Amino acid sequence: MDNQVFSEIFSRAREQHPLVHHITNYVTVNDCANITICAGGAPVMADAPEEAGEMAGFAGALVLNIGTLNPGIIGSMILAGKAANDHRIPIILDPVGAGATRLRTESTRRLLDTLEIAVIKGNAGEIGVLAGAAAKVRGVDSAGVTGDLVEITRDFAQETGMTVVASGSTDIITDGRRVLFVENGHPMMGGISGTGCMASSVTGVCAAVSTDMVTAAATALAAFGLAGERAAAQSRGPGSFKAALFDEMAALTPDDLKWGARVTST
Amino acid sequence: MDNQVFSEIFSRAREQHPLVHHITNYVTVNDCANITICAGGAPVMADAPEEAGEMAGFAGALVLNIGTLNPGIIGSMILAGKAANDHRIPIILDPVGAGATRLRTESTRRLLDTLEIAVIKGNAGEIGVLAGAAAKVRGVDSAGVTGDLVEITRDFAQETGMTVVASGSTDIITDGRRVLFVENGHPMMGGISGTGCMASSVTGVCAAVSTDMVTAAATALAAFGLAGERAAAQSRGPGSFKAALFDEMAALTPDDLKWGARVTST
Amino acid sequence: MDNQVFSEIFSRAREQHPLVHHITNYVTVNDCANITICAGGAPVMADAPEEAGEMAGFAGALVLNIGTLNPGIIGSMILAGKAANDHRIPIILDPVGAGATRLRTESTRRLLDTLEIAVIKGNAGEIGVLAGAAAKVRGVDSAGVTGDLVEITRDFAQETGMTVVASGSTDIITDGRRVLFVENGHPMMGGISGTGCMASSVTGVCAAVSTDMVTAAATALAAFGLAGERAAAQSRGPGSFKAALFDEMAALTPDDLKWGARVTST
Repeated sequence: MDNQVFSEIFSRAREQHPLVHHITNYVTVNDCANITICAGGAPVMADAPEEAGEMAGFAGALVLNIGTLNPGIIGSMILAGKAANDHRIPIILDPVGAGATRLRTESTRRLLDTLEIAVIKGNAGEIGVLAGAAAKVRGVDSAGVTGDLVEITRDFAQETGMTVVASGSTDIITDGRRVLFVENGHPMMGGISGTGCMASSVTGVCAAVSTDMVTAAATALAAFGLAGERAAAQSRGPGSFKAALFDEMAALTPDDLKWGARVTST
Repeated sequence: MDNQVFSEIFSRAREQHPLVHHITNYVTVNDCANITICAGGAPVMADAPEEAGEMAGFAGALVLNIGTLNPGIIGSMILAGKAANDHRIPIILDPVGAGATRLRTESTRRLLDTLEIAVIKGNAGEIGVLAGAAAKVRGVDSAGVTGDLVEITRDFAQETGMTVVASGSTDIITDGRRVLFVENGHPMMGGISGTGCMASSVTGVCAAVSTDMVTAAATALAAFGLAGERAAAQSRGPGSFKAALFDEMAALTPDDLKWGARVTST
Repeated sequence: MDNQVFSEIFSRAREQHPLVHHITNYVTVNDCANITICAGGAPVMADAPEEAGEMAGFAGALVLNIGTLNPGIIGSMILAGKAANDHRIPIILDPVGAGATRLRTESTRRLLDTLEIAVIKGNAGEIGVLAGAAAKVRGVDSAGVTGDLVEITRDFAQETGMTVVASGSTDIITDGRRVLFVENGHPMMGGISGTGCMASSVTGVCAAVSTDMVTAAATALAAFGLAGERAAAQSRGPGSFKAALFDEMAALTPDDLKWGARVTST
């Protein structure tokens, strides 16, 4: 693919500094805030029902992450999501652990039924379960999916109208028509908690400055993966890797993405 | 200014190891705990209404930060704040995002109406909004204030009896009579989430061992800013900067502050 | 002692990759997630009453940490704990700040009365208070205990049937019969927030692959302490120490533990 489009999206993110509203989990929330800044965005976290909708109305994108969900938080997500839909602000949904418990699966379905989601991004197990495939989730990790994940993902996107991202060593991104594959990334990213959540935050930053969600998501995953590759090259383990990941994400330029993004299409 | 006073306050913090009770947000709470330790204090976070007042009664200072507020947490802040007032323990209020949503502005006003706050510390937009000036807040960031910020800050302090801190590249600290300016700090501090919250925690540590809130706040901001300068000199980006910030805060000595604090007065 | 047993437990943790369910505080939760991964486990945090029991049923161990408790979270802990007991999954309880406030002391007693706890791990003050000794807790730190801590700990274990761990520069581990002492560790571990919580998470990882809780806890504390020693040797302060702590925990091998564990018995 011509990487020019990714380079341009990333460049816009850095220029426009979009506000990215998060309703997310308390495990990785600090990492989400910091990676948002590194990617060019301005993070804000606000989950009280009294302000969730109001804050979403000011944002460039809304990231919903159910990592430590409860029914009250899902209610706030719906309030924020409706405000985002009203203002035509893209919503990125990370259905952390969908398939592992009934609460996670049902809450995700409720969000999908109630809100217009622009991008859903999960691991193979989560996406598989939600798409109705034979898939398993253990805790918040994918425990495998039976069948052709590309087909499952594409069908799911076609049925729902969402851009679907199945993350993995190769990320699959599709709106049901186009399918992009992102090869950037490094195994060390799996050695720390929160890289999935952070990828969703970076997707929020890119979605906030884009109209095409497929290229926005590809930009985000290529950029974050590239930062991960560079961080891995200078790290002794997960602790030094994490610090380097923020360093490299902040240092990444649109030109780096032009030369370093490894994105292919079917 | 003679920096001897800052050096002495910082020295007392290291000797007395004050307990600093926080009711704060879940985004930067870990950073607040760690910077409190680095500054010489002992952090405790306790926000259940069943214990908030009891815990505050044991503390040397109480830090209230509304970064991820909800009405229940504001209720706990009031319980803790009343206990702190009863025990004559200084309260530091960080009105994160006041001016961005009604909930944040109104909750801050409720805290100001109900409690005797020793120090309020916010960015220019937050302080401007609360002082009744023409100011704007976007998410949790200042989006500018119209008018002379020194005058606005001083008038706000005079009207309310609080020590008011407007943080920025130059921090303004005033009790309505004296005005101090702290020049310490580094732009890299704006490249990570939580430096504002951490500055409030360090202010809590210094307030716990002081009777004069103006010099306590100046000590905290000069020390934290100096640590930021030193951390920036050895960092490759925000990830390595953050690790170095804790290293440098912990390594800072009263003598460093004597020679390195850049504080002026009107 | 023959360190072979610790080496074997640690080796099993790395092979079996057990799911460790946490209901824990929002201050150090990210550190708990990351250290669980570094130790070989898969962390999951789920505290909604609607899923806490279901998630615990899938786990290899359940870690309950009351660092930022409230009555709702205690209710979820009981639901998760009952599921864990039903499935014969070991529960590790970290009674953070028990003795500091009535809520913490009484909630801990309620957990002890309602659930079958496999391992309780606290500092000297927390364990002392719960054991009925003359002990004090200030915030979340031990403020000393009067009497022979070994005796207090052993008696407490005998009375309750739990494995009791009193952490300190020398950790005491006992089931009321055997008493083990772990000498591994470094003073820099006290310079960051969360090392106590992380030690409980690592204990969860080791307990998930063990039937003997005394050797499981000793393995965890020796391994974590050894990682702390190695991290300290390369750190400039608490920020770089924390990054190195994760690096070293992830790099630790069963062989390292065989040669480096410093565990003695009475």
